[in-house]
Amino acid sequence: MIRVAVNGYGTIGRRVADAVLKQKDMELEGVTKVRGDYRARLAVEKGLPLYAADGRHVPEFAKAGIETKGTLNDLLKRVDVVVDATPDEIGRGNKPIYERAGVKAIFQGGEEHSLTNFSFVAQCNFEKAAGKNMVRVVSCNTTALCRTLHALNSGLGILKARVVLVRRAADPDETSKGPIDAIVPDPVTVPSHHGPDVQSVIEGLNITTMALKVPETHMHLHSVIASLKGQPTRDRVLDALAKEPRVLLVDANAGFKSTASIIDMAREMNRPRNDVYEAVVWKDSVSVADGEAYFFLAVHQEAIVTPENIDAIRAVSGGIGKEQSMRVTDASLGIA
Amino acid sequence: MIRVAVNGYGTIGRRVADAVLKQKDMELEGVTKVRGDYRARLAVEKGLPLYAADGRHVPEFAKAGIETKGTLNDLLKRVDVVVDATPDEIGRGNKPIYERAGVKAIFQGGEEHSLTNFSFVAQCNFEKAAGKNMVRVVSCNTTALCRTLHALNSGLGILKARVVLVRRAADPDETSKGPIDAIVPDPVTVPSHHGPDVQSVIEGLNITTMALKVPETHMHLHSVIASLKGQPTRDRVLDALAKEPRVLLVDANAGFKSTASIIDMAREMNRPRNDVYEAVVWKDSVSVADGEAYFFLAVHQEAIVTPENIDAIRAVSGGIGKEQSMRVTDASLGIA
Repeated sequence: MIRVAVNGYGTIGRRVADAVLKQKDMELEGVTKVRGDYRARLAVEKGLPLYAADGRHVPEFAKAGIETKGTLNDLLKRVDVVVDATPDEIGRGNKPIYERAGVKAIFQGGEEHSLTNFSFVAQCNFEKAAGKNMVRVVSCNTTALCRTLHALNSGLGILKARVVLVRRAADPDETSKGPIDAIVPDPVTVPSHHGPDVQSVIEGLNITTMALKVPETHMHLHSVIASLKGQPTRDRVLDALAKEPRVLLVDANAGFKSTASIIDMAREMNRPRNDVYEAVVWKDSVSVADGEAYFFLAVHQEAIVTPENIDAIRAVSGGIGKEQSMRVTDASLGIA
Repeated sequence: MIRVAVNGYGTIGRRVADAVLKQKDMELEGVTKVRGDYRARLAVEKGLPLYAADGRHVPEFAKAGIETKGTLNDLLKRVDVVVDATPDEIGRGNKPIYERAGVKAIFQGGEEHSLTNFSFVAQCNFEKAAGKNMVRVVSCNTTALCRTLHALNSGLGILKARVVLVRRAADPDETSKGPIDAIVPDPVTVPSHHGPDVQSVIEGLNITTMALKVPETHMHLHSVIASLKGQPTRDRVLDALAKEPRVLLVDANAGFKSTASIIDMAREMNRPRNDVYEAVVWKDSVSVADGEAYFFLAVHQEAIVTPENIDAIRAVSGGIGKEQSMRVTDASLGIA
């Protein structure tokens, strides 16, 4: 039994905590939070052991009448692995705390690659995480690109990938983020960090990325253009994508007109929090011309890294191989 | 004096009518409208001769107390050139009317290339319009791509262009169009029609385009990726863009953070209707790596074809060359 803590119960932490509860080889020892808000209350009502991220926050929980079991330091004494799901670059400050506590740690894509010198996407490099104490699960966008480009790179070979990432500007509950009516080159310089981030997982891949953000909350949408080796055909590209785990092919004729309809599908499927764990590719968009493949790729920014975190916990803990871990994770989350 | 009619007083027609009024070699004989709305009233108050697009609409104008001078057929008797600024594919039905009236006609990008077999962007093919009776000014997106790719193709030579067009879903006053919170691959298939449309102006250009629409009203934003001949450098690309007419280079550090700030600039400049006639390129985004140029390009969908329509009127009328026409047009509209 792998004893797990989730430090930070926000967008990613909540999802990872629920996913840990679904694993037969894991035990969720607790989650931490900073604020005694409705999420903290719901966590306690669900029976999750709640800890204050820091002793300074204990009074806020007490004031809100929410019971805490102690602080992060107390929680770390009870676990083998901590998933750091704190906001961007807060994880960096937590690393020495985990080292002192002697627990393995999984960080998120908001941290730099250099924090762990190992960036993780299950299907790309699960085995290489063996024996590591610290692993970084890459961001939502990088995860989706790694899955789909891994499919093309293994199946056909990529000469060069060019990707334009149209990013949702805010998650549905983030009411202070904009824009409301503008398209923002973000960053305005080329390339964006996503290309190098993909290379931290798929070493040596030739990729350039451009990114912008738009007034939307449901998913990111990538336009992928990949020059392939040999004589690629549409069928071979479709086949490589269809065979790749955690890549879902959808069809506009079946009603998938936009990112919003993909999220609506997840609601119809009763997925928790309407989560789409898969990288979603529009079958209709998959085209090949002059040795280049083109497709549209949708990414549920809140959910896609959930299975990666579960696999990363197993990868650093050892004892279970890639295929078995991914199979167990997928079965627990309802990924086909 | 070229006597001009503008058939259709919507997004494009209003702008072209105002621009015609600013030309010393043109006379605006009248504009047509279908509805007796506030725009019709304002046109009459500005002193524009207003005609009903069709006799059937006369009662509506009468009911609204708006004076009309007659119908389209009356107007066509008074002019040399008509600018057809009617909604997409309505122009096709108007073509025989213009032919019968013996007037030259300028159509918009909502019509097929085959309607006139000549698609126009001033700096690319002004001279070839000489002697033609019917010319099609291409769409806003195609116009912006033709200007910027013409710069790169003339200056350096394009091997292949790949463009992802992120389109504004609606103009500011279009309250019935969506989406509100979704990114829509549009079309979901690749390539979009924009590539072939650019080829209708720049023959033989190797270009593939992908398009999507987002909840925004201010401008379109293109991510342009162009493989160039020879040994391109960033300076050579910047230089080619800077020298190209009707291309404006802006700098994020000067406050141009998004499409909205470009429109805000036009408001500060007192441009009529905050119009941005230029194709706008972020200087910061211009990059060159491995023989490929990258840049972000913003397109004011309502305004960018205004100067093209004015030049197209001159091009089919004859007597004035490209450089002079563009210079006069630009001076009249405040284009630097």
